[in-house]
Amino acid sequence: KLQYHIECQAGDIAPVVIVPGDQGRVEKIVAGLSDARKMAENRGLITYTGKYKGHPVSVTSTGMGGPSASIVYEELINIGAKVLIRIGSVAGLQDYVNEGDIVVPYGCVRDDGASNYYVPANFPAVPSPDVYSSLTASARERKRKIVTGINWTHSCFYKRDPEYFQSWSRRRVVSLEMEASALFVISYLRNVKAGFIGICYANRYRQSAGPKVDLSVKSPKRDVIENSVQEAIEITLTAIKKLYDGDLV
Amino acid sequence: KLQYHIECQAGDIAPVVIVPGDQGRVEKIVAGLSDARKMAENRGLITYTGKYKGHPVSVTSTGMGGPSASIVYEELINIGAKVLIRIGSVAGLQDYVNEGDIVVPYGCVRDDGASNYYVPANFPAVPSPDVYSSLTASARERKRKIVTGINWTHSCFYKRDPEYFQSWSRRRVVSLEMEASALFVISYLRNVKAGFIGICYANRYRQSAGPKVDLSVKSPKRDVIENSVQEAIEITLTAIKKLYDGDLV
Amino acid sequence: KLQYHIECQAGDIAPVVIVPGDQGRVEKIVAGLSDARKMAENRGLITYTGKYKGHPVSVTSTGMGGPSASIVYEELINIGAKVLIRIGSVAGLQDYVNEGDIVVPYGCVRDDGASNYYVPANFPAVPSPDVYSSLTASARERKRKIVTGINWTHSCFYKRDPEYFQSWSRRRVVSLEMEASALFVISYLRNVKAGFIGICYANRYRQSAGPKVDLSVKSPKRDVIENSVQEAIEITLTAIKKLYDGDLV
Amino acid sequence: KLQYHIECQAGDIAPVVIVPGDQGRVEKIVAGLSDARKMAENRGLITYTGKYKGHPVSVTSTGMGGPSASIVYEELINIGAKVLIRIGSVAGLQDYVNEGDIVVPYGCVRDDGASNYYVPANFPAVPSPDVYSSLTASARERKRKIVTGINWTHSCFYKRDPEYFQSWSRRRVVSLEMEASALFVISYLRNVKAGFIGICYANRYRQSAGPKVDLSVKSPKRDVIENSVQEAIEITLTAIKKLYDGDLV
Amino acid sequence: KLQYHIECQAGDIAPVVIVPGDQGRVEKIVAGLSDARKMAENRGLITYTGKYKGHPVSVTSTGMGGPSASIVYEELINIGAKVLIRIGSVAGLQDYVNEGDIVVPYGCVRDDGASNYYVPANFPAVPSPDVYSSLTASARERKRKIVTGINWTHSCFYKRDPEYFQSWSRRRVVSLEMEASALFVISYLRNVKAGFIGICYANRYRQSAGPKVDLSVKSPKRDVIENSVQEAIEITLTAIKKLYDGDLV
Amino acid sequence: KLQYHIECQAGDIAPVVIVPGDQGRVEKIVAGLSDARKMAENRGLITYTGKYKGHPVSVTSTGMGGPSASIVYEELINIGAKVLIRIGSVAGLQDYVNEGDIVVPYGCVRDDGASNYYVPANFPAVPSPDVYSSLTASARERKRKIVTGINWTHSCFYKRDPEYFQSWSRRRVVSLEMEASALFVISYLRNVKAGFIGICYANRYRQSAGPKVDLSVKSPKRDVIENSVQEAIEITLTAIKKLYDGDLV
Repeated sequence: KLQYHIECQAGDIAPVVIVPGDQGRVEKIVAGLSDARKMAENRGLITYTGKYKGHPVSVTSTGMGGPSASIVYEELINIGAKVLIRIGSVAGLQDYVNEGDIVVPYGCVRDDGASNYYVPANFPAVPSPDVYSSLTASARERKRKIVTGINWTHSCFYKRDPEYFQSWSRRRVVSLEMEASALFVISYLRNVKAGFIGICYANRYRQSAGPKVDLSVKSPKRDVIENSVQEAIEITLTAIKKLYDGDLV
Repeated sequence: KLQYHIECQAGDIAPVVIVPGDQGRVEKIVAGLSDARKMAENRGLITYTGKYKGHPVSVTSTGMGGPSASIVYEELINIGAKVLIRIGSVAGLQDYVNEGDIVVPYGCVRDDGASNYYVPANFPAVPSPDVYSSLTASARERKRKIVTGINWTHSCFYKRDPEYFQSWSRRRVVSLEMEASALFVISYLRNVKAGFIGICYANRYRQSAGPKVDLSVKSPKRDVIENSVQEAIEITLTAIKKLYDGDLV
Repeated sequence: KLQYHIECQAGDIAPVVIVPGDQGRVEKIVAGLSDARKMAENRGLITYTGKYKGHPVSVTSTGMGGPSASIVYEELINIGAKVLIRIGSVAGLQDYVNEGDIVVPYGCVRDDGASNYYVPANFPAVPSPDVYSSLTASARERKRKIVTGINWTHSCFYKRDPEYFQSWSRRRVVSLEMEASALFVISYLRNVKAGFIGICYANRYRQSAGPKVDLSVKSPKRDVIENSVQEAIEITLTAIKKLYDGDLV
Repeated sequence: KLQYHIECQAGDIAPVVIVPGDQGRVEKIVAGLSDARKMAENRGLITYTGKYKGHPVSVTSTGMGGPSASIVYEELINIGAKVLIRIGSVAGLQDYVNEGDIVVPYGCVRDDGASNYYVPANFPAVPSPDVYSSLTASARERKRKIVTGINWTHSCFYKRDPEYFQSWSRRRVVSLEMEASALFVISYLRNVKAGFIGICYANRYRQSAGPKVDLSVKSPKRDVIENSVQEAIEITLTAIKKLYDGDLV
Repeated sequence: KLQYHIECQAGDIAPVVIVPGDQGRVEKIVAGLSDARKMAENRGLITYTGKYKGHPVSVTSTGMGGPSASIVYEELINIGAKVLIRIGSVAGLQDYVNEGDIVVPYGCVRDDGASNYYVPANFPAVPSPDVYSSLTASARERKRKIVTGINWTHSCFYKRDPEYFQSWSRRRVVSLEMEASALFVISYLRNVKAGFIGICYANRYRQSAGPKVDLSVKSPKRDVIENSVQEAIEITLTAIKKLYDGDLV
Repeated sequence: KLQYHIECQAGDIAPVVIVPGDQGRVEKIVAGLSDARKMAENRGLITYTGKYKGHPVSVTSTGMGGPSASIVYEELINIGAKVLIRIGSVAGLQDYVNEGDIVVPYGCVRDDGASNYYVPANFPAVPSPDVYSSLTASARERKRKIVTGINWTHSCFYKRDPEYFQSWSRRRVVSLEMEASALFVISYLRNVKAGFIGICYANRYRQSAGPKVDLSVKSPKRDVIENSVQEAIEITLTAIKKLYDGDLV
């Protein structure tokens, strides 16, 4: 059945779907696929389906925040997605997490604004170990160092309160972004696999260390970011091949 | 300063900005303006600025859900917005609220997923009386009957639990959608005026009356919807003129 | 049926009832009515019914706090009240809200101690737009400037913590008192109209600006207060006439 | 200093104050005192001071609900009260608690609407053991059987939901009323002694056993109630004498 | 039926059971009994049954914390316990509560980690008045001064935050330990009697007065502690005799 | 420094400590070590240190429940533990999880009663990926099929409410026990690695499928359990060797 928001139906997507938040990132990912075809576009939710080394792969943008992304995750699962991997931007929450670093978290603090309507707050947001270990193994093979740990999925980009950020830094949380914990919770509940790989674009730990938060962000088109986005895409595609090869899809 | 997500800066927008969620609705609104010019597009956030009967008016799409929309509201206010009016889709929560009905709420239940990071849950999400009464007066002048009452802003489109919907129907809540309460809270905190006008596309009260929720939605391109969207746009533009004429901007 | 606490029954009250908290204020309001007759007195809950320019109007005191006032609101609605308007005392929470100022809020923070047993905390406490706009129009006609915005209904008069007050001042809340949000919630749920007009007797913003709260209050019988109470009563009675004249009762 | 609401000051009251909710009960209590004199009346808060067998005793009515009563408790303590004993009405929550029964609780479930602004919900509302045991000893001496256990202080007299009542009956809670837990919490925090004795006027357990709650109450002037009120007053006065005699005031 | 954790069954225990947390304390208590016999030991839960001046008394260790102790309380009640009295260690939360002091509380703040799964947070944790007054009367007879008031049952021995402790000191809470509030709640729900007597081994008020908490504890084998433990055991056994003699078991 | 509860100090334990809840399981684990020596025993907390294939390994029992186990986890980390692995008993929450099954979870629902005093409820309880993947790899090598997924750490063994269990079964949670989530949270905060392997002794999903929960448990000494405990110990010791060999300790 045609899904209301993404305007796709069964057959339109591959079992593995890459789910970036930003529409602008879709084409960069699609560039790594062969035979890619645009399947639909509605409300900024764009879907392509193609192949990576012979294995079917789709890409769908989710928009920003848990409520928007949840709609996309649910509709993709409705029509046959079995593995969802988010490629997204993160801000660092530890002093050592710098612009251009790649983060692959193994758990999320849940402030996504949507998953709390599915399960109580004490339910853990965790990736599938199969996807997590494919991503980290793929990074290792490519000799790319990654950051790992717990990530904070939050909903309030413009919160002007240092403690909003510092309270998580003190708990050793490594990064923050806006869509991963909803992905992990919904995927677990609906029995599909999920993972997340992030590219660091700013360091909120240092930006919130003083009495006033600095919420500014430099251009996302800097080379250090663009190169890491490219690297994250390649890590992800390699990880997807591993999943297919290991019969884990 | 250039805003990170909407990619606009001071001077790019009018003091009054219409903020639909859906990118597809932007052009329909722009069609009612003269001298409209596209100012920016990034991550599905599209901004136009033009005029209505001589008064400057902008339109910016927000994406779906409180977290995404909050970013847009904040950035618009950062660069000079003084009045924000959302035109959006709602589902009815009372038996008498039908497809094509126009709803202008005077308060919202807050489940938007973002505003709770600004203020505790007991803070009311309310439109500015100036905007609310301009919208209702404008509808009255156009002899368009509207529904009014409390609306529920929620974050979980695919919640499969009848009670999720029925519990609010029993409290006489008239409609639901995903972005209004964040608009009302942020606008109050930052001292700008806000209002919301919605077009009903489904009746969730009837769809959740049985043991299983029916979450299906018919095509948004039906005439009954399209006509009401057109009407809602005209009511809004007329209301904006009233605000300018009454020196309320 | 005779109501347990107010000791009135259907026929004893008018469709419009003014509901002050303070018993001492009842007579001042009654002085503005013609043909007023005391209908009942029990537990400090005093009811009079009379007329204002030919329209029936009742007055019932509610006692202090949400739990007490809720009982009165419910019993009045049980026996036919259609519009409830509270005249009460408020303290200012902004520097610019001074003794003798008149406040007509369009929303309330809900800490009334009773309404949370009816609806979750995220349900908005809002007046009926009909009553709100009648009160503000009536003030405008009488050339009385009013303060408007969000009011905080709280339950803890003797809380000795500056942050208890300042946290709301920072959110631009204009005033505080103890019974309005319960009125708004119960009235919405039971489908009657409600409004609130308050007279400022102290400035809690300034009293809580230092390290210790000053909870002292000067005599309520000062001229600046008495004059404003008189004015608020006249605004209310004029507003009630508007509601009757507009067929809004 | 003159207290704002009760309009008493140091010297006006005895170290022991009986605090009924209902103004109508004040005179019945005063009838048991000698040399009683009315000290003040404001907003339905009436204060008398007299003697019982030579010991000074005051009576002050509190109005209904935690927010109103808290104001009175605080102001009485401000001007020297050392022991506060509430005589009030309760409804039974166990099948065996009948009209006319006297209840002396040793703990309260806290839904009073005010004490949660002083301490978190997990702080226990408990009477002073000195007052509790004086009351029970005094009842025993008078051969009056009493009910004891945990009482529920609530804020929502007109809640129409059987489970609201039955959920506490299942936890063996014996009775409900509206002011005791605020008394216990405030008294503990301010280091004064407190106790409560209640007279049962209805059985909410039986009234809520079906699908709809029956919230009706028969006349409070029935003999079975009046006799027990008289008995509760005598038990209380005897207990006060014990406290004085034991140097526990 | 054999209970899973304590490995006792009906007939193995007396109607009165002393429930220390520490296994090492069991033998000290047993030394005060005659004809004592070990009934079971499993998972550090040791049970003895014997006699005190002819009355049957058992002792069962509970382990540390509400979740562990709750299992023991439930299983003891399953097989016939009617009175449970905890002898345990407490830390002082007031400046005046010193090492070796004996504390008999009449209420507990509930942070035990288990009772909140039985009843909401606002349910009071209170001892049975019969047990409380037997313990205090027994101490009085033995001329042992005790501390009384509200105790805090908590779950997080190694919390390194001064405010964690100081916030309760400011509310006049006298002591803290880890098992009493679960005992009081479960006992009330299951209609058995409960009490608690504690021996102070440290002063957390003074240890948390500075910017860093000092969580160190001196050896529990100091004379001042050992002597008070002995005294607490004797007070408890005397109290048990009182309960038997007064037909309160 | 000597730790207060476990009575060990730096030097007494290995960098890797196995932390069973049950004292009775300590010796079974120790049987798999060489050169094992008892280091301390206090309050049922028993510590041994020995070697497995040349690598130092300790075992410390934690008692039942998050509050007790947290004390042990903290004290072990205080004196040098770098990896903590719990071997424990679980009950199945899915129909397919049977007695004797081995469960290695990759996340926990947090109802442990202690970790909520360290971090808010939305912080995820997750094992270290290094430990998780060593355990699963070790099971795979030994051809032992394991169950994996999300586990529920709870605090209320005797909760008699089917929904208490079924609500998690519906969310695809695989098992329940009482100490793992506290282990995961504390370990993350203090920067040590943690994992958990459980042996299923009962199926709470089937036991709670009817209107009344069956909380009975058959003897833990059945062969099917004993054999799996033995297998879990061997998987754990093999995993520890992998960690040492991979320089992950």
